[in-house]
Parts: sequence; structure tokens; C-alpha cells
Amino acid sequence: MKTLSWNDPIVRDELRRLKRLKPFCYGLTNYIAANLSANVLLAVGAGPAIGAALDWQRAFSSHAHAVWINAACLMSNSPAEVAEAAIGARGAGVPWVLDPVAVGAGAVEYDTAIRHLLDHKPTAIRGNASELVALAGGEGGAQGVETTLGAEQALPVIQQEALKYQTVIAVSGPIDYITDGHNTLSVEGGDARLTQVTGAGCSLGALSAAFLAGSANPLYSVAAAHAVYAEAAQRAGGAKGTGSFAVQFLDQLSLLDPDEPSA
Amino acid sequence: MKTLSWNDPIVRDELRRLKRLKPFCYGLTNYIAANLSANVLLAVGAGPAIGAALDWQRAFSSHAHAVWINAACLMSNSPAEVAEAAIGARGAGVPWVLDPVAVGAGAVEYDTAIRHLLDHKPTAIRGNASELVALAGGEGGAQGVETTLGAEQALPVIQQEALKYQTVIAVSGPIDYITDGHNTLSVEGGDARLTQVTGAGCSLGALSAAFLAGSANPLYSVAAAHAVYAEAAQRAGGAKGTGSFAVQFLDQLSLLDPDEPSA
Amino acid sequence: MKTLSWNDPIVRDELRRLKRLKPFCYGLTNYIAANLSANVLLAVGAGPAIGAALDWQRAFSSHAHAVWINAACLMSNSPAEVAEAAIGARGAGVPWVLDPVAVGAGAVEYDTAIRHLLDHKPTAIRGNASELVALAGGEGGAQGVETTLGAEQALPVIQQEALKYQTVIAVSGPIDYITDGHNTLSVEGGDARLTQVTGAGCSLGALSAAFLAGSANPLYSVAAAHAVYAEAAQRAGGAKGTGSFAVQFLDQLSLLDPDEPSA
Repeated sequence: MKTLSWNDPIVRDELRRLKRLKPFCYGLTNYIAANLSANVLLAVGAGPAIGAALDWQRAFSSHAHAVWINAACLMSNSPAEVAEAAIGARGAGVPWVLDPVAVGAGAVEYDTAIRHLLDHKPTAIRGNASELVALAGGEGGAQGVETTLGAEQALPVIQQEALKYQTVIAVSGPIDYITDGHNTLSVEGGDARLTQVTGAGCSLGALSAAFLAGSANPLYSVAAAHAVYAEAAQRAGGAKGTGSFAVQFLDQLSLLDPDEPSA
Repeated sequence: MKTLSWNDPIVRDELRRLKRLKPFCYGLTNYIAANLSANVLLAVGAGPAIGAALDWQRAFSSHAHAVWINAACLMSNSPAEVAEAAIGARGAGVPWVLDPVAVGAGAVEYDTAIRHLLDHKPTAIRGNASELVALAGGEGGAQGVETTLGAEQALPVIQQEALKYQTVIAVSGPIDYITDGHNTLSVEGGDARLTQVTGAGCSLGALSAAFLAGSANPLYSVAAAHAVYAEAAQRAGGAKGTGSFAVQFLDQLSLLDPDEPSA
Repeated sequence: MKTLSWNDPIVRDELRRLKRLKPFCYGLTNYIAANLSANVLLAVGAGPAIGAALDWQRAFSSHAHAVWINAACLMSNSPAEVAEAAIGARGAGVPWVLDPVAVGAGAVEYDTAIRHLLDHKPTAIRGNASELVALAGGEGGAQGVETTLGAEQALPVIQQEALKYQTVIAVSGPIDYITDGHNTLSVEGGDARLTQVTGAGCSLGALSAAFLAGSANPLYSVAAAHAVYAEAAQRAGGAKGTGSFAVQFLDQLSLLDPDEPSA
């Protein structure tokens, strides 16, 4: 399995491409993570719009460069509105990311709504191990939005599911794994305090969408998003507590320069 | 009246207990305070989930270790959804906290919905003086979410109401008071700039719920939450402005160590 | 055209007036910007309440000192709820600000709902160039919430529209312009990174409302809000990345002292 990091030219190239395109990224997400998700996108030069205000989900999903749907947007949006965003993106050939937050945590109606979204062929799916195992029909054991499984435990499952849905699947953990079923990449590094910043996982879904905008290689684009995230988190590692860590993480994300010399 | 502070062994014990349990805390709250509330819980090691996405309020309220309901969640949730969360918690023996934000500020339908929640026997109620006086049927004089009364003025009222509803009631102010009607504790310290950080009061409701998870003594658990909050705020006191204060407050909250030597 | 800055006595006077009044400001806004908008208002001493929880929009709009309506609140509120807030403010003689976020970006139903709000005579309108040109019926070319036009390009349009609607219109850009159609003021300075902080524009709408509370001169009050914003952004200019910039911007806003000596 290949390990990808900020020092790989392909990651730099992907970030350079993103900064040049400045993609308009449209997202449906939950209101806990919406602010951070937008700031993460702005930090790397993307232009976010979030939410379903009247007909936004029809108008914006098809005109964006990329779309992300965080399933917990169902706390603000109806299943029909969410489906419109997925259908709009799919119909217009816009790449879209599904983040099945808290699937398998015991909310049956919610889980069903997420499964219906799979019909609209997400370009990529990202989540934690419990969520991705549950999405595949297994016993994920999610406790609310938290995982109780390690990323390694989800790896065989997501490799199988990626083939089945012809999509890229990424599982977050101390080591992240990103697979299209044929090839699997890993991303190391990061900082455990990312799990103490609410919405950090959700924002990685948004960032993955931004990297998918205009991508020639979805597997590498999603992996690059994870590598950039891990690098920014690592550079914020000197922060004193969880509040400063979140601020310095955004700082570092905004300062990452594709042209800096490799370490 | 006993004064409780971070230096009291019982406060340290309560935080130690919380950090060991890592309670799953489910909340319905307003979208202004949701992000900070989640980060406050994550800072002390609790695991938050927020919002009513389809059937979350049924599935999560009964499986959480603790629940908090911030009445301003009614900007996103129907009264029926909110009641489901309260009923779910109550039915499963899960402690739950009611935060009657802005009750008595002139919104009659809103106030009525809050009063109905009292039927489901909150384990604790927290608010500012205007809110708690209004909740008891008095003239609270709230201006939106701001109090116009001092905490001392609410003290006799909350002592009476705590007996009536067999609950713990906490009123926030320069000095906080926490009572079950029989005994009253006070918590001093903190920093006035907490009132300039939106959602800081709301997040204290969330933290109170986390301390109530698995608690043997609700009065002391809620008071411990207030003492921990006041200590973190005090330690953040060197911050330059309100933005840094919020960040350093979260930092200090995440760094509070139950095993550090008492001052 | 007169240029206004923090060093002008009238700007200091306006901030002094605001800090004395501590206006209760009621807003409907989107959940991405709600937290920052509230913190911006708290930083200058105003008291915000945000959202339509049951009958809040009826009760609070007529009792507030000022109201702001950010059209993207339509992601949480129905057009009828939003209209109630506008009608409540207008009927009670409470000044209100309209922020037509993302109008002209392609969402037809959404745009129509915004146009209906003009019937309720906003005291001021603020937006970026694309939005204000689109609101006037022109080709704004907005990409989601981002402008594709410069503020100068919108200037003749907003001067005309300000006369037509007898309102104050402010367009944000590297240089801001504020006009009532008869007179136009410009505000320079600021920091480009404000555009990388989500909700910074939306929060300026909230701050403009706060300055309009009890104002004797809406044109100068809205311009003063822009001058104060630009000054705080400039003072935060030493920040390292976009995360720190947002924090230091709030710090500087909270520290601005109307009585400090002019530069």
C-alpha cells in the first residue's frame, strides 16, 4: 500500500490545481460544522456556499465545481431537498462527496435516508470506521458521531464497497485509508486533537469535494485532501489546548504553499 | 451557603469521573451556540451529538448518558421533536438539563412550549436570572437572551421552584447559585467576558448535562460544572480581547487536570 | 466623495453612542454566519438575539432597537417568517437592514423572496457588488455568495437604487461605498483576509443594524459601521493565517475605544 504525504509532488500538484481553479463548492451540512467547513474551504482558496435556502439546492448543485453532502444536514433539510442536491450534481456531472455522519448509531429513519443517497452515485464517500462499516450493512457500533472501531477494521469493508459502488471511499483515523477498491493509499500524521474540534471530520468531507473539482484522478485527489489536512494538523501541533489548536490548524491550512521546498 | 471552587476535592472528583466515563451527550440547541457547546464538551472528554435529523431525537435521547435541551432549539425543531427528546431521556432514566433561553422576553408561544417541557421533569434547569424568574411566573424582564436582573434576585425564586419541581436549578451571574431547594451552593470567579462570547451560557447547560451523566449527586455535579467553567474562564483572563478570550477559555477547559495540586 | 475613517470624530461619536445605548439587535441570518454575527455585536457592546423560534420574529422585531435580515436565513426560515420580522420592524419604526446574500446567483425562488422584502422598506441594504447589481435587476454574475464585480462597478447602480427605495445602500469591497443616493461616502482600509472568514460580510450587516439603532443620520451610521470594521480588520493585519486573523479581528473590534487619541 502506498503512503501519501505532503512531501509527495502529486499532493503539491493537487493543491496547486485547487488554488488555481478556486472552485465554487456547494454543500449541505449540519449547522454545527457549517462554519468550520466554510472556513476550511476559504483557507485553501475555494469558494463555499452552504445550505438549502428555497431553491438553492437545485440551482447551486448543478453549477458548482463540486458538491458535498453531509448527511447530518437532515437536521435542517428534508430528504427530498438533500436528494435534489445529489441528483443535481450527478445530472450535471459535478463530483459530489457523501459523508454519512452517525449512520448506524441507532436512528433508523435517518439511516434509510442516507442509503437512498447511494443511488445517486457519490464520487467519493468519507467517514469514520463505524460509519463506513454500518453503511456497508455491518455492525458499526457508532456512538452518536463517534467511532468505536479503528480505521484498519474498516479497510476490507471499504475496499469491497468502493468496487460495488464504483466510488472512492476514505476512512479517517490515526492513519487514514483511501481506496477505489483496486488501489489503496494511506495518509499518516495529523494530530489526535482534530477529534476534539467539532466538525473537523465534516470539514474534511468539504475539502475532499474541493479537491475533486476538475480532478483527473479522484483517488489521488481525495487522498491529497487528507494529506493536506494531516499536514496542517501536524503543523498546528504546538498549540496549547483544543481552542488554539483549531485556530492554528486553520492558519496552517491557509499557509500551506504548494511551492515550498519538500522536507 | 457553601462556596464551591476548583480547589474543592469534590469538584476534582467530579471532573475525574467525567473524564473516565467520556459520556455520550445528546443535545438540542440553537445553531448559534451549537458549535461552542460541542467544543466545550469535547474539551473535557465528553462526546457530543447535536440536532434532530429525522429520528435522532428518539434514538439518541434514550441511549445517551445525558441530554440537554436548550429551548432556543425551537428555531430548528418543532415542539413535538423537542418533547420527544425530553420524553426519551426521562423514560430511559437519562438525566437531562433544560436551558430556558429567553423565556419571558415577550414571545408567548415560545414561552408556552418551554413550560410544557417542565412536565417531563428535567434533572436540572440552568439559566440567567431573568429567565428563571420568568419561568417561575414572575416578571423577569429579559431583553432577548440577556438578563436585566442579578443572580441574587433570582435566588429565593429558584429555591422555591427547585422544591416544587424536585430538580436542581442553577442561575448564572458574577456569582452563580446552584440549589435543590434544600441546599444551595455558590460558585465565584469566572470572567465577565464570558457574557461577550455568544453561546457561553448555552454551553454551560451542555457541560452541566455531561457532569450529570452517572452522577450520584446532581446538586454537586451541576455545581462542579459551574466551578470548572469559572476556573477555565479565570485562567483565560489574560486574553486581550473577546476573540482570544473564547479561544483561551476552550484551551484552559481542555487543560484542566483533576490531579493537579490544589492552590 | 468624502472618505470616512476611524480617525473622523463622527465615527468615534457613532461608536460612543452605540456603546452607551447597548442596543438589543434582533436578527434572522444563516447558520453559517450566526455565531460570528453575534460575537461581532457582543464585541462592541450590543446585545444580539438571532433566529425565529416559534413567535420570536413577531415578538422581538418590534421590541428590538434594530433588526437585520440576512436573506440566507431562508435556509432556516420560511418567507412568511422572514416577512413577519421585516413587517414587525417597519411597523414599530425599528430600523432594519437587508443583506441580500447570493441574490442573482441563479436561485429564482430565492431571489423572488428577497425582492418581496423590499416592499417593507429597509432602512439600509448592504451586500457585495454582484448582489447589489442583481438586486437592481442587472447582471450581477454572483457565484454563490462571492462577487465577480468590483465595488466601483456597482456604485452608479446603488446610487440610483438608494434614491428609488429611499434607503441607504452599502457595497463592500477593497474600498466600501455607502450612499443614500444624494451623498456617497467611501471607507478604505480593512484587510483582504476578511473575505476568507466565512460570515464576515454577513456580520457587517448585523453591525450596520447596531449602528442604526437610535441613529439620527442613517448614512453616517452605516458608514461608521464600515469604518469601524475596516479599522479592526487593519489592526488584525499582523495575524499569521486566516484562523488567527478572525480571532484578532474580534479582539480588535472589542478593544476599539472611541476616546483613544486620533492618529
